[in-house]
Parts: sequence; C-alpha cells; structure tokens
Amino acid sequence: MNGKNLDVSVLLDFYGELLTEKQRDAIELYYNEDLSLAEISEHQGISRQGVRDAIKRGEATLLELESKLGLSKKFFDTSADLEKALRLAEEIKRCNDKSFYSLEINKKVEEIFRILTPYVNE
Amino acid sequence: MNGKNLDVSVLLDFYGELLTEKQRDAIELYYNEDLSLAEISEHQGISRQGVRDAIKRGEATLLELESKLGLSKKFFDTSADLEKALRLAEEIKRCNDKSFYSLEINKKVEEIFRILTPYVNE
Repeated sequence: MNGKNLDVSVLLDFYGELLTEKQRDAIELYYNEDLSLAEISEHQGISRQGVRDAIKRGEATLLELESKLGLSKKFFDTSADLEKALRLAEEIKRCNDKSFYSLEINKKVEEIFRILTPYVNE
Repeated sequence: MNGKNLDVSVLLDFYGELLTEKQRDAIELYYNEDLSLAEISEHQGISRQGVRDAIKRGEATLLELESKLGLSKKFFDTSADLEKALRLAEEIKRCNDKSFYSLEINKKVEEIFRILTPYVNE
C-alpha cells in the first residue's frame, strides 16, 4: 500500500473468491475504483484502520496464493505466447495479400485471429 | 472415492500446493501412482481410515477451489481453442504446400506450430 500495486488488481481477478467479502470489497474499491481509504471507510461503515487492515490481509493472501500456485503468471506467459502466434498469423496474411491472394488462406488466418485475439491484451 | 475420479489428478496439478502435505501425498499416491488405501497406509505409517479421510478432505478442498476459481476449466477451454488454431495453421500449410510453396508462409506456420503445440494435449 505504498503506492497502489497494479498486480494486486490482476491477482484479485484470479483468486478474489478466496478472500473474505470485506477484503475483496475493500481491495476492489481501492484498486479498481480508485477510492481513498477514507471513502472506503465511509462506504463500508468501518474505521479507516479497519479498511487498511482488510486490504493488507487480502493483499498478503493474494500474494501467497500466487506464490504457491503461480496461475496468474502461467496465464500471462500463455498470453505472451499467443500474442506472438497472432503476429505470425498477421504476417502470413500480409505475405498472402501481397503475393497469392488465396481466399482460402485468408479465411483460415481470419479464423485464427478470431480465436487468439481474446487471449491477447492489446 | 467410489471409483477413482480422474479429474482429481488434474485439480491436484492446479491447486495441490494449497493442501496439507499429508492430503497431497495421499492423493498423489492414490490417483497418480495408483496405490491402494492399504499400501498408502503402510507407506505413510497411518491407519487405512486416516488415509481415506486425508483423501476425502483433500478432494473436497480441490473441488471447492475449482468451484470458486474455475482456473482448471479456464485452462482447458484455452487448450481447446488453441487446438482449433493449430488445426487451422495445419490447413494453411497444406493449402500453401499444394498451391504456392511459399517458404515464407511455411516458416511462419512452423513457428505457430512450435508456439501452440505445448498447449494442446495430443
């Protein structure tokens, strides 16, 4: 909480369901909605220190889960690989457009785009 | 434990680090090494009932984690998508081999194979 850590927001997507509701809500409001501790305190009806504790404990749980399971890293490694595959498919399309104009190849490349694009953060 | 559930072995890969060592070992020996409860009991130096309880509790935790997080399903859905993309890349290669013999397209298709193949269970 010395400066907001963007990774926490990502880890919340993966492991948030394993936090208590109070921790999940506080982290959600702090990281994703960008509220201040004072605003969250008012919103949740608990003390500012209570909010700080909930966020700290929730963060520690998220980091421990990632350290044990590594599933967020696994997904991001996959995403990086799929971005490379997507770029290669784009190069195939350019090569085909320039030289052969094969509708069959372009159709298949377009299908590859459709499958891979949702996995790539652009 | 009415018949071994193969999914448990998969869930162990994803979430095993969140089980106790006793649970993880018992499930590993039962599902992956195919030992009987009696054999595991001898191996771990605990009663047959103790082994049964460790497996039951571990299984319940794994199923609850998957029900809350769904990360195993997410990985398998991704794998199914990437298998489709791989098949399309193979079709592009066949089409190219048949009609154009473009070395550039084949080289890029081969790179796509290399990236996607590890994600597809064949």
